[in-house]
Amino acid sequence: MNSKDLGPLSHTEAAIGVFDSGLGGLTVLKELKLRLPQERYIYLGDTARTPYGSKGRETIIRFARECSEFLFDWGIKMLVVACNTASSYAIEALRAESPIPILGTIDAAARQALQVTRTGKIGVIGTDATIASRAFEKALQRDGFKHALHSKACPLFVPLVEQGMCEGEIVEKIVELYLSDFRRADLDTLILGCTHYPLLKNVIQEFLGAEVRIVECSAALAEEAGSLLPEYVLSKTSPLKKDRLFITDDTPKFESMAAFILGSSKLSVERAMLGEGARP
Amino acid sequence: MNSKDLGPLSHTEAAIGVFDSGLGGLTVLKELKLRLPQERYIYLGDTARTPYGSKGRETIIRFARECSEFLFDWGIKMLVVACNTASSYAIEALRAESPIPILGTIDAAARQALQVTRTGKIGVIGTDATIASRAFEKALQRDGFKHALHSKACPLFVPLVEQGMCEGEIVEKIVELYLSDFRRADLDTLILGCTHYPLLKNVIQEFLGAEVRIVECSAALAEEAGSLLPEYVLSKTSPLKKDRLFITDDTPKFESMAAFILGSSKLSVERAMLGEGARP
Repeated sequence: MNSKDLGPLSHTEAAIGVFDSGLGGLTVLKELKLRLPQERYIYLGDTARTPYGSKGRETIIRFARECSEFLFDWGIKMLVVACNTASSYAIEALRAESPIPILGTIDAAARQALQVTRTGKIGVIGTDATIASRAFEKALQRDGFKHALHSKACPLFVPLVEQGMCEGEIVEKIVELYLSDFRRADLDTLILGCTHYPLLKNVIQEFLGAEVRIVECSAALAEEAGSLLPEYVLSKTSPLKKDRLFITDDTPKFESMAAFILGSSKLSVERAMLGEGARP
Repeated sequence: MNSKDLGPLSHTEAAIGVFDSGLGGLTVLKELKLRLPQERYIYLGDTARTPYGSKGRETIIRFARECSEFLFDWGIKMLVVACNTASSYAIEALRAESPIPILGTIDAAARQALQVTRTGKIGVIGTDATIASRAFEKALQRDGFKHALHSKACPLFVPLVEQGMCEGEIVEKIVELYLSDFRRADLDTLILGCTHYPLLKNVIQEFLGAEVRIVECSAALAEEAGSLLPEYVLSKTSPLKKDRLFITDDTPKFESMAAFILGSSKLSVERAMLGEGARP
Protein backbone atom coordinates (compact mmCIF):
# COMPACT_ATOMS: atom_id res chain seq x y z
CA MET A 1 0.00 0.00 0.00
CA ASN A 2 1.44 3.32 -1.00
CA SER A 3 0.02 6.62 0.20
CA LYS A 4 0.65 8.17 -3.19
CA ASP A 5 -1.88 5.80 -4.77
CA LEU A 6 -4.54 6.47 -2.17
CA GLY A 7 -4.31 10.22 -1.77
CA PRO A 8 -4.25 12.00 1.57
CA LEU A 9 -7.96 12.11 2.38
CA SER A 10 -8.85 8.47 1.83
CA HIS A 11 -7.39 6.77 4.86
CA THR A 12 -8.11 8.48 8.14
CA GLU A 13 -7.11 5.26 9.87
CA ALA A 14 -3.60 5.41 8.47
CA ALA A 15 -0.65 6.23 10.70
CA ILE A 16 1.40 9.40 11.08
CA GLY A 17 5.01 8.82 10.00
CA VAL A 18 7.84 10.41 11.98
CA PHE A 19 11.55 10.23 11.23
CA ASP A 20 14.78 11.50 12.67
CA SER A 21 18.48 10.74 12.24
CA GLY A 22 18.37 8.90 15.57
CA LEU A 23 16.61 9.19 18.88
CA GLY A 24 16.23 12.99 19.23
CA GLY A 25 12.98 12.82 17.26
CA LEU A 26 11.45 10.72 20.02
CA THR A 27 10.99 14.00 21.91
CA VAL A 28 8.72 15.03 19.02
CA LEU A 29 6.92 11.67 19.04
CA LYS A 30 6.28 12.10 22.76
CA GLU A 31 4.67 15.52 22.23
CA LEU A 32 2.61 14.21 19.31
CA LYS A 33 1.28 11.34 21.42
CA LEU A 34 0.41 13.75 24.23
CA ARG A 35 -1.58 16.04 21.93
CA LEU A 36 -2.97 13.46 19.51
CA PRO A 37 -3.26 10.30 21.60
CA GLN A 38 -5.88 8.72 19.31
CA GLU A 39 -3.45 8.58 16.39
CA ARG A 40 -1.17 5.70 15.44
CA TYR A 41 2.51 6.41 14.74
CA ILE A 42 5.32 4.82 12.79
CA TYR A 43 8.71 6.13 13.87
CA LEU A 44 11.97 5.65 11.97
CA GLY A 45 15.37 6.51 13.49
CA ASP A 46 18.23 6.30 10.99
CA THR A 47 20.65 5.25 13.73
CA ALA A 48 23.02 3.46 11.32
CA ARG A 49 23.91 6.79 9.67
CA THR A 50 23.40 9.19 12.59
CA PRO A 51 24.29 12.04 13.00
CA TYR A 52 23.07 14.09 10.03
CA GLY A 53 24.14 17.48 11.43
CA SER A 54 27.79 17.21 10.43
CA LYS A 55 27.09 15.97 6.89
CA GLY A 56 26.67 17.78 3.58
CA ARG A 57 23.52 19.02 1.87
CA GLU A 58 23.27 16.36 -0.87
CA THR A 59 23.83 13.54 1.61
CA ILE A 60 21.18 14.92 3.98
CA ILE A 61 18.62 15.20 1.17
CA ARG A 62 19.37 11.64 -0.02
CA PHE A 63 19.03 10.22 3.50
CA ALA A 64 15.79 12.17 4.17
CA ARG A 65 14.32 10.89 0.90
CA GLU A 66 15.14 7.28 1.81
CA CYS A 67 13.58 7.67 5.26
CA SER A 68 10.45 9.23 3.74
CA GLU A 69 10.12 6.47 1.15
CA PHE A 70 10.28 3.84 3.89
CA LEU A 71 7.41 5.59 5.72
CA PHE A 72 5.39 6.30 2.54
CA ASP A 73 5.42 2.54 1.91
CA TRP A 74 3.45 2.13 5.14
CA GLY A 75 0.65 4.25 3.68
CA ILE A 76 1.02 7.10 6.16
CA LYS A 77 -1.37 10.06 5.99
CA MET A 78 1.06 12.69 7.32
CA LEU A 79 4.85 12.88 7.53
CA VAL A 80 6.62 14.65 10.39
CA VAL A 81 10.30 15.41 9.81
CA ALA A 82 11.42 15.36 13.45
CA CYS A 83 15.00 16.32 12.65
CA ASN A 84 16.07 19.94 12.28
CA THR A 85 18.94 19.13 9.94
CA ALA A 86 16.66 17.20 7.55
CA SER A 87 13.96 19.89 7.90
CA SER A 88 16.51 22.58 7.02
CA TYR A 89 17.68 20.99 3.78
CA ALA A 90 15.16 18.46 2.57
CA ILE A 91 11.63 19.64 3.39
CA GLU A 92 11.05 21.40 0.06
CA ALA A 93 12.33 18.41 -1.94
CA LEU A 94 10.12 16.04 0.06
CA ARG A 95 7.03 18.25 -0.32
CA ALA A 96 7.55 18.46 -4.07
CA GLU A 97 7.29 14.67 -4.31
CA SER A 98 4.39 13.95 -1.96
CA PRO A 99 0.63 14.63 -1.91
CA ILE A 100 0.34 14.16 1.88
CA PRO A 101 1.07 16.95 4.38
CA ILE A 102 4.70 17.12 5.46
CA LEU A 103 5.58 19.01 8.62
CA GLY A 104 9.09 20.08 9.61
CA THR A 105 10.52 21.50 12.79
CA ILE A 106 11.70 24.85 11.46
CA ASP A 107 8.47 26.70 10.56
CA ALA A 108 6.62 25.70 13.71
CA ALA A 109 9.46 26.79 16.01
CA ALA A 110 9.98 30.06 14.13
CA ARG A 111 6.29 30.95 14.49
CA GLN A 112 6.31 30.16 18.19
CA ALA A 113 9.45 32.26 18.72
CA LEU A 114 7.72 35.24 17.09
CA GLN A 115 4.73 34.74 19.41
CA VAL A 116 6.78 34.77 22.62
CA THR A 117 9.48 37.38 21.92
CA ARG A 118 8.96 40.85 23.39
CA THR A 119 12.16 42.57 22.23
CA GLY A 120 12.83 40.75 18.93
CA LYS A 121 16.20 39.58 20.26
CA ILE A 122 15.91 35.97 19.17
CA GLY A 123 18.72 33.41 19.09
CA VAL A 124 18.88 29.94 17.61
CA ILE A 125 21.24 27.04 18.26
CA GLY A 126 21.58 23.87 16.19
CA THR A 127 23.95 21.51 14.40
CA ASP A 128 26.60 22.75 11.97
CA ALA A 129 24.38 21.86 9.01
CA THR A 130 21.20 23.46 10.41
CA ILE A 131 22.94 26.75 11.24
CA ALA A 132 24.79 26.83 7.89
CA SER A 133 21.46 26.39 6.05
CA ARG A 134 20.07 29.65 7.56
CA ALA A 135 16.69 27.90 7.50
CA PHE A 136 15.47 29.51 10.75
CA GLU A 137 16.43 32.96 9.51
CA LYS A 138 14.47 32.46 6.28
CA ALA A 139 11.42 31.08 8.12
CA LEU A 140 11.39 34.03 10.55
CA GLN A 141 11.74 36.54 7.71
CA ARG A 142 8.85 34.91 5.82
CA ASP A 143 6.74 35.59 8.93
CA GLY A 144 7.77 39.26 9.03
CA PHE A 145 10.78 39.20 11.35
CA LYS A 146 12.94 42.28 10.67
CA HIS A 147 15.73 41.95 13.25
CA ALA A 148 19.10 40.20 13.04
CA LEU A 149 18.91 36.59 14.21
CA HIS A 150 21.66 35.47 16.60
CA SER A 151 22.73 31.96 15.59
CA LYS A 152 25.35 29.50 16.80
CA ALA A 153 26.26 25.95 15.87
CA CYS A 154 26.79 23.75 18.96
CA PRO A 155 28.25 20.53 17.50
CA LEU A 156 29.25 18.95 20.81
CA PHE A 157 25.73 19.05 22.27
CA VAL A 158 24.49 15.96 20.38
CA PRO A 159 27.44 13.74 21.41
CA LEU A 160 27.01 14.91 25.03
CA VAL A 161 23.31 14.00 25.07
CA GLU A 162 23.97 10.69 23.34
CA GLN A 163 26.46 9.88 26.11
CA GLY A 164 23.78 10.71 28.68
CA MET A 165 25.79 13.75 29.84
CA CYS A 166 23.08 16.36 30.43
CA GLU A 167 24.52 18.19 33.45
CA GLY A 168 27.72 18.69 35.43
CA GLU A 169 30.91 20.68 35.07
CA ILE A 170 31.88 19.56 31.54
CA VAL A 171 28.40 20.31 30.18
CA GLU A 172 28.44 23.72 31.89
CA LYS A 173 31.84 24.56 30.37
CA ILE A 174 30.67 23.61 26.88
CA VAL A 175 27.43 25.60 27.30
CA GLU A 176 29.55 28.58 28.35
CA LEU A 177 31.84 28.08 25.33
CA TYR A 178 28.93 28.18 22.89
CA LEU A 179 26.50 30.61 24.56
CA SER A 180 28.67 33.40 26.03
CA ASP A 181 27.96 35.64 23.03
CA PHE A 182 24.23 35.10 23.50
CA ARG A 183 24.38 36.19 27.15
CA ARG A 184 26.21 39.38 26.12
CA ALA A 185 23.62 40.01 23.37
CA ASP A 186 20.82 40.13 25.97
CA LEU A 187 18.51 37.70 24.12
CA ASP A 188 14.92 37.35 25.23
CA THR A 189 14.10 34.17 23.26
CA LEU A 190 16.21 31.13 22.34
CA ILE A 191 15.10 28.47 19.84
CA LEU A 192 16.52 25.00 20.56
CA GLY A 193 17.00 24.12 16.90
CA CYS A 194 17.82 20.45 17.42
CA THR A 195 15.61 17.75 18.91
CA HIS A 196 18.43 16.58 21.24
CA TYR A 197 18.79 19.93 22.95
CA PRO A 198 15.73 19.85 25.25
CA LEU A 199 17.72 17.36 27.34
CA LEU A 200 20.24 20.17 28.04
CA LYS A 201 17.54 22.76 28.71
CA ASN A 202 18.18 23.08 32.47
CA VAL A 203 21.87 23.93 32.05
CA ILE A 204 21.13 26.32 29.17
CA GLN A 205 18.35 28.08 31.11
CA GLU A 206 20.60 28.38 34.17
CA PHE A 207 23.38 29.92 32.08
CA LEU A 208 21.19 32.40 30.16
CA GLY A 209 18.91 33.30 33.07
CA ALA A 210 15.28 32.54 33.89
CA GLU A 211 13.97 35.52 31.90
CA VAL A 212 15.02 34.05 28.55
CA ARG A 213 12.15 32.16 26.91
CA ILE A 214 13.15 28.83 25.42
CA VAL A 215 11.29 27.49 22.38
CA GLU A 216 11.42 23.75 21.78
CA CYS A 217 10.72 22.47 18.29
CA SER A 218 8.92 19.35 19.49
CA ALA A 219 6.13 21.18 21.30
CA ALA A 220 5.69 23.70 18.48
CA LEU A 221 5.56 20.95 15.88
CA ALA A 222 3.04 18.82 17.78
CA GLU A 223 0.78 21.84 18.16
CA GLU A 224 0.96 22.49 14.42
CA ALA A 225 0.19 18.84 13.62
CA GLY A 226 -2.84 18.99 15.90
CA SER A 227 -4.20 22.10 14.24
CA LEU A 228 -3.58 20.72 10.75
CA LEU A 229 -5.23 17.31 11.12
CA PRO A 230 -8.90 18.44 11.29
CA GLU A 231 -8.33 20.48 8.15
CA TYR A 232 -7.31 17.29 6.35
CA VAL A 233 -10.15 15.23 7.95
CA LEU A 234 -7.58 12.79 9.20
CA SER A 235 -7.85 12.92 12.94
CA LYS A 236 -9.54 9.65 13.77
CA THR A 237 -7.74 6.32 13.60
CA SER A 238 -8.34 2.80 14.77
CA PRO A 239 -7.15 2.41 18.34
CA LEU A 240 -6.57 -1.29 17.76
CA LYS A 241 -3.37 -0.97 15.79
CA LYS A 242 -0.16 -0.37 17.71
CA ASP A 243 2.62 2.11 17.07
CA ARG A 244 5.78 0.78 15.44
CA LEU A 245 9.36 1.90 16.12
CA PHE A 246 12.08 1.18 13.56
CA ILE A 247 15.82 1.84 13.57
CA THR A 248 18.43 1.16 10.88
CA ASP A 249 21.21 0.07 13.25
CA ASP A 250 21.23 -2.91 15.58
CA THR A 251 22.26 -1.15 18.79
CA PRO A 252 20.27 -2.52 21.73
CA LYS A 253 20.67 0.66 23.80
CA PHE A 254 18.10 2.48 21.64
CA GLU A 255 15.30 0.46 23.24
CA SER A 256 16.11 1.61 26.78
CA MET A 257 16.65 5.23 25.73
CA ALA A 258 13.36 5.21 23.80
CA ALA A 259 11.59 3.78 26.86
CA PHE A 260 13.14 6.56 28.97
CA ILE A 261 12.16 9.40 26.60
CA LEU A 262 8.66 8.08 25.90
CA GLY A 263 8.07 7.03 29.51
CA SER A 264 6.91 3.56 28.52
CA SER A 265 8.39 0.17 29.31
CA LYS A 266 6.47 -1.85 26.73
CA LEU A 267 8.46 -0.88 23.65
CA SER A 268 9.48 -3.18 20.87
CA VAL A 269 12.01 -1.76 18.43
CA GLU A 270 12.27 -3.28 14.94
CA ARG A 271 15.05 -3.17 12.38
CA ALA A 272 14.58 -1.32 9.08
CA MET A 273 16.67 -1.65 5.93
CA LEU A 274 16.30 1.49 3.85
CA GLY A 275 15.74 0.88 0.16
CA GLU A 276 14.73 -2.74 0.77
CA GLY A 277 13.12 -5.09 3.32
CA ALA A 278 10.76 -4.36 6.24
CA ARG A 279 7.62 -3.74 4.21
CA PRO A 280 4.16 -3.78 5.78
CA MET B 1 39.28 -5.31 -12.87
CA ASN B 2 38.72 -7.22 -9.66
CA SER B 3 41.51 -8.37 -7.37
CA LYS B 4 39.71 -11.63 -6.72
CA ASP B 5 40.11 -12.59 -10.37
CA LEU B 6 43.78 -11.71 -10.51
CA GLY B 7 45.08 -13.13 -7.24
CA PRO B 8 47.37 -11.26 -4.89
CA LEU B 9 50.73 -11.92 -6.55
CA SER B 10 49.93 -10.92 -10.10
CA HIS B 11 49.86 -7.15 -9.94
CA THR B 12 52.73 -5.55 -8.08
CA GLU B 13 51.81 -2.26 -9.70
CA ALA B 14 48.39 -2.26 -8.10
CA ALA B 15 47.53 0.14 -5.30
CA ILE B 16 47.17 -0.42 -1.56
CA GLY B 17 43.57 0.21 -0.45
CA VAL B 18 42.94 1.98 2.86
CA PHE B 19 39.57 2.69 4.44
CA ASP B 20 38.20 4.33 7.57
CA SER B 21 34.83 5.60 8.75
CA GLY B 22 36.06 9.14 8.10
CA LEU B 23 39.28 11.08 8.31
CA GLY B 24 41.01 9.39 11.27
CA GLY B 25 42.46 6.78 8.90
CA LEU B 26 44.43 9.53 7.17
CA THR B 27 46.88 9.31 10.09
CA VAL B 28 47.47 5.70 8.94
CA LEU B 29 47.78 6.75 5.29
CA LYS B 30 50.37 9.33 6.30
CA GLU B 31 52.48 6.70 8.09
CA LEU B 32 52.14 4.29 5.18
CA LYS B 33 53.33 6.95 2.72
CA LEU B 34 56.30 7.74 4.97
CA ARG B 35 57.41 4.11 5.16
CA LEU B 36 56.36 2.94 1.70
CA PRO B 37 56.65 6.08 -0.44
CA GLN B 38 56.96 4.12 -3.69
CA GLU B 39 53.47 2.65 -3.32
CA ARG B 40 50.23 4.04 -4.72
CA TYR B 41 47.23 4.38 -2.41
CA ILE B 42 43.46 4.51 -2.76
CA TYR B 43 41.81 5.88 0.38
CA LEU B 44 38.10 5.67 1.17
CA GLY B 45 36.53 7.63 4.06
CA ASP B 46 32.89 6.66 4.70
CA THR B 47 32.09 10.19 5.86
CA ALA B 48 28.37 9.91 5.01
CA ARG B 49 27.91 7.26 7.72
CA THR B 50 30.63 8.27 10.18
CA PRO B 51 31.09 7.53 13.06
CA TYR B 52 31.19 3.72 13.26
CA GLY B 53 32.22 3.58 16.94
CA SER B 54 28.74 4.12 18.38
CA LYS B 55 27.02 1.63 16.05
CA GLY B 56 26.22 -2.06 16.40
CA ARG B 57 28.20 -5.11 15.30
CA GLU B 58 26.08 -6.11 12.28
CA THR B 59 26.00 -2.56 10.96
CA ILE B 60 29.78 -2.19 11.31
CA ILE B 61 30.40 -5.46 9.45
CA ARG B 62 28.01 -4.43 6.65
CA PHE B 63 29.65 -1.01 6.26
CA ALA B 64 33.18 -2.51 6.33
CA ARG B 65 32.19 -5.03 3.65
CA GLU B 66 30.83 -2.25 1.40
CA CYS B 67 34.00 -0.18 1.82
CA SER B 68 36.17 -3.21 1.04
CA GLU B 69 34.15 -4.07 -2.06
CA PHE B 70 34.59 -0.54 -3.36
CA LEU B 71 38.38 -0.87 -2.95
CA PHE B 72 38.53 -4.45 -4.30
CA ASP B 73 36.93 -3.13 -7.48
CA TRP B 74 40.04 -1.00 -7.98
CA GLY B 75 42.17 -4.14 -8.12
CA ILE B 76 44.13 -3.38 -4.95
CA LYS B 77 46.89 -5.77 -3.85
CA MET B 78 46.56 -5.17 -0.10
CA LEU B 79 43.75 -3.82 2.10
CA VAL B 80 44.45 -1.77 5.22
CA VAL B 81 41.51 -1.38 7.61
CA ALA B 82 42.53 1.95 9.13
CA CYS B 83 39.63 2.05 11.57
CA ASN B 84 39.80 0.34 14.94
CA THR B 85 36.05 -0.19 15.16
CA ALA B 86 35.96 -1.94 11.78
CA SER B 87 39.13 -3.86 12.63
CA SER B 88 37.57 -5.03 15.90
CA TYR B 89 34.42 -6.48 14.36
CA ALA B 90 34.92 -7.09 10.67
CA ILE B 91 38.50 -8.19 9.98
CA GLU B 92 37.78 -11.93 10.20
CA ALA B 93 34.75 -11.64 7.91
CA LEU B 94 36.75 -9.62 5.38
CA ARG B 95 39.69 -12.05 5.43
CA ALA B 96 37.38 -14.98 4.87
CA GLU B 97 36.20 -13.40 1.61
CA SER B 98 39.49 -12.13 0.16
CA PRO B 99 42.68 -13.69 -1.24
CA ILE B 100 44.74 -10.50 -0.77
CA PRO B 101 46.41 -9.60 2.55
CA ILE B 102 44.18 -7.59 4.89
CA LEU B 103 45.79 -5.67 7.74
CA GLY B 104 43.91 -4.23 10.68
CA THR B 105 44.92 -1.86 13.45
CA ILE B 106 44.42 -4.18 16.42
CA ASP B 107 47.07 -6.88 15.98
CA ALA B 108 49.86 -4.48 15.05
CA ALA B 109 49.21 -2.20 18.03
CA ALA B 110 48.89 -5.12 20.45
CA ARG B 111 52.25 -6.53 19.34
CA GLN B 112 53.92 -3.14 19.70
CA ALA B 113 52.45 -2.67 23.18
CA LEU B 114 53.93 -6.02 24.26
CA GLN B 115 57.32 -4.92 22.91
CA VAL B 116 57.41 -1.64 24.87
CA THR B 117 55.79 -2.57 28.19
CA ARG B 118 58.11 -3.23 31.11
CA THR B 119 55.59 -3.94 33.88
CA GLY B 120 52.72 -5.48 31.88
CA LYS B 121 50.41 -2.70 33.06
CA ILE B 122 48.85 -1.93 29.68
CA GLY B 123 45.77 0.20 29.06
CA VAL B 124 43.71 0.73 25.94
CA ILE B 125 41.23 3.46 25.01
CA GLY B 126 38.83 3.44 22.06
CA THR B 127 35.26 3.94 20.91
CA ASP B 128 32.31 2.26 22.65
CA ALA B 129 32.22 -0.45 19.97
CA THR B 130 35.96 -1.16 19.98
CA ILE B 131 36.13 -1.49 23.76
CA ALA B 132 32.94 -3.62 23.89
CA SER B 133 34.44 -6.00 21.30
CA ARG B 134 37.40 -6.85 23.61
CA ALA B 135 39.45 -7.19 20.42
CA PHE B 136 42.63 -5.74 21.95
CA GLU B 137 42.38 -8.09 24.92
CA LYS B 138 42.03 -11.10 22.62
CA ALA B 139 44.95 -9.98 20.41
CA LEU B 140 47.22 -9.47 23.43
CA GLN B 141 46.28 -12.86 24.88
CA ARG B 142 47.02 -14.57 21.55
CA ASP B 143 50.51 -13.10 21.84
CA GLY B 144 50.97 -14.46 25.36
CA PHE B 145 49.81 -11.54 27.52
CA LYS B 146 48.79 -12.87 30.95
CA HIS B 147 47.87 -9.67 32.83
CA ALA B 148 44.54 -7.88 33.12
CA LEU B 149 44.11 -5.23 30.42
CA HIS B 150 42.84 -1.83 31.60
CA SER B 151 40.31 -0.60 29.05
CA LYS B 152 38.07 2.46 28.76
CA ALA B 153 35.69 3.75 26.09
CA CYS B 154 36.17 7.49 25.44
CA PRO B 155 33.19 8.34 23.19
CA LEU B 156 33.63 12.13 23.35
CA PHE B 157 37.19 12.08 21.97
CA VAL B 158 36.15 11.64 18.32
CA PRO B 159 33.62 14.53 18.34
CA LEU B 160 36.25 16.75 20.03
CA VAL B 161 38.87 15.98 17.36
CA GLU B 162 36.34 16.41 14.57
CA GLN B 163 35.59 19.88 15.96
CA GLY B 164 39.31 20.67 15.93
CA MET B 165 39.35 20.80 19.74
CA CYS B 166 42.64 19.08 20.59
CA GLU B 167 43.73 21.14 23.64
CA GLY B 168 42.43 23.57 26.24
CA GLU B 169 40.40 23.37 29.43
CA ILE B 170 37.42 21.39 28.09
CA VAL B 171 39.67 18.76 26.50
CA GLU B 172 41.67 18.50 29.74
CA LYS B 173 38.49 18.00 31.79
CA ILE B 174 37.26 15.25 29.46
CA VAL B 175 40.67 13.54 29.49
CA GLU B 176 40.56 13.65 33.29
CA LEU B 177 37.02 12.21 33.28
CA TYR B 178 38.05 9.22 31.19
CA LEU B 179 41.63 8.58 32.34
CA SER B 180 41.64 9.14 36.11
CA ASP B 181 41.34 5.39 36.75
CA PHE B 182 44.34 4.79 34.50
CA ARG B 183 46.49 7.25 36.42
CA ARG B 184 45.56 5.49 39.67
CA ALA B 185 46.37 2.08 38.10
CA ASP B 186 49.97 3.19 37.43
CA LEU B 187 50.00 2.10 33.76
CA ASP B 188 53.29 1.97 31.90
CA THR B 189 51.83 1.63 28.38
CA LEU B 190 48.69 3.06 26.77
CA ILE B 191 47.35 1.96 23.38
CA LEU B 192 45.48 4.71 21.50
CA GLY B 193 42.88 2.35 20.05
CA CYS B 194 41.30 4.84 17.66
CA THR B 195 42.91 6.60 14.72
CA HIS B 196 41.54 9.99 15.88
CA TYR B 197 43.29 9.86 19.24
CA PRO B 198 46.86 10.75 18.18
CA LEU B 199 45.56 14.30 17.77
CA LEU B 200 44.89 14.36 21.54
CA LYS B 201 48.22 12.73 22.41
CA ASN B 202 49.80 15.82 24.01
CA VAL B 203 46.96 16.32 26.51
CA ILE B 204 46.83 12.57 27.29
CA GLN B 205 50.61 12.35 27.79
CA GLU B 206 50.54 15.44 30.01
CA PHE B 207 47.77 13.94 32.15
CA LEU B 208 49.30 10.45 32.49
CA GLY B 209 52.92 11.61 32.81
CA ALA B 210 55.95 11.40 30.52
CA GLU B 211 56.94 7.91 31.72
CA VAL B 212 53.84 6.28 30.18
CA ARG B 213 54.61 4.90 26.69
CA ILE B 214 51.93 5.65 24.14
CA VAL B 215 51.34 3.21 21.27
CA GLU B 216 49.68 4.60 18.14
CA CYS B 217 47.98 2.16 15.80
CA SER B 218 48.99 4.04 12.67
CA ALA B 219 52.74 3.66 13.18
CA ALA B 220 52.43 0.03 14.23
CA LEU B 221 50.25 -0.78 11.25
CA ALA B 222 52.52 0.94 8.71
CA GLU B 223 55.49 -0.98 10.09
CA GLU B 224 53.61 -4.25 9.69
CA ALA B 225 52.58 -3.38 6.13
CA GLY B 226 56.22 -2.61 5.27
CA SER B 227 57.42 -5.95 6.63
CA LEU B 228 54.64 -7.87 4.89
CA LEU B 229 55.00 -6.47 1.38
CA PRO B 230 58.33 -8.12 0.42
CA GLU B 231 56.88 -11.44 1.52
CA TYR B 232 54.13 -11.00 -1.02
CA VAL B 233 56.49 -9.69 -3.76
CA LEU B 234 54.34 -6.63 -4.04
CA SER B 235 56.54 -3.75 -3.04
CA LYS B 236 57.25 -2.03 -6.35
CA THR B 237 54.64 0.02 -8.18
CA SER B 238 54.55 2.49 -11.00
CA PRO B 239 55.35 5.96 -9.70
CA LEU B 240 53.38 7.52 -12.53
CA LYS B 241 49.93 6.84 -11.15
CA LYS B 242 48.61 9.17 -8.48
CA ASP B 243 46.94 8.37 -5.18
CA ARG B 244 43.16 8.77 -5.05
CA LEU B 245 41.08 9.97 -2.10
CA PHE B 246 37.36 9.17 -1.96
CA ILE B 247 34.66 10.10 0.55
CA THR B 248 30.98 9.13 0.62
CA ASP B 249 29.68 12.53 1.82
CA ASP B 250 29.88 15.86 0.04
CA THR B 251 31.35 17.94 2.85
CA PRO B 252 34.01 20.30 1.53
CA LYS B 253 35.83 20.57 4.87
CA PHE B 254 37.31 17.08 4.41
CA GLU B 255 39.68 18.41 1.77
CA SER B 256 41.28 20.98 4.06
CA MET B 257 41.51 18.55 6.98
CA ALA B 258 43.08 15.90 4.73
CA ALA B 259 45.60 18.47 3.49
CA PHE B 260 46.41 19.34 7.11
CA ILE B 261 46.88 15.72 8.24
CA LEU B 262 48.83 14.63 5.16
CA GLY B 263 50.85 17.83 4.96
CA SER B 264 50.05 18.36 1.28
CA SER B 265 48.19 21.13 -0.46
CA LYS B 266 47.66 19.37 -3.80
CA LEU B 267 44.82 17.09 -2.80
CA SER B 268 41.79 16.31 -4.88
CA VAL B 269 39.00 14.50 -3.06
CA GLU B 270 36.45 12.52 -5.10
CA ARG B 271 32.96 11.32 -4.23
CA ALA B 272 32.22 7.62 -3.88
CA MET B 273 28.82 5.93 -3.91
CA LEU B 274 29.07 2.60 -2.13
CA GLY B 275 27.41 -0.27 -3.94
CA GLU B 276 27.35 1.63 -7.24
CA GLY B 277 29.17 4.33 -9.26
CA ALA B 278 32.79 5.52 -9.11
CA ARG B 279 34.40 2.54 -10.83
CA PRO B 280 37.95 2.67 -12.21
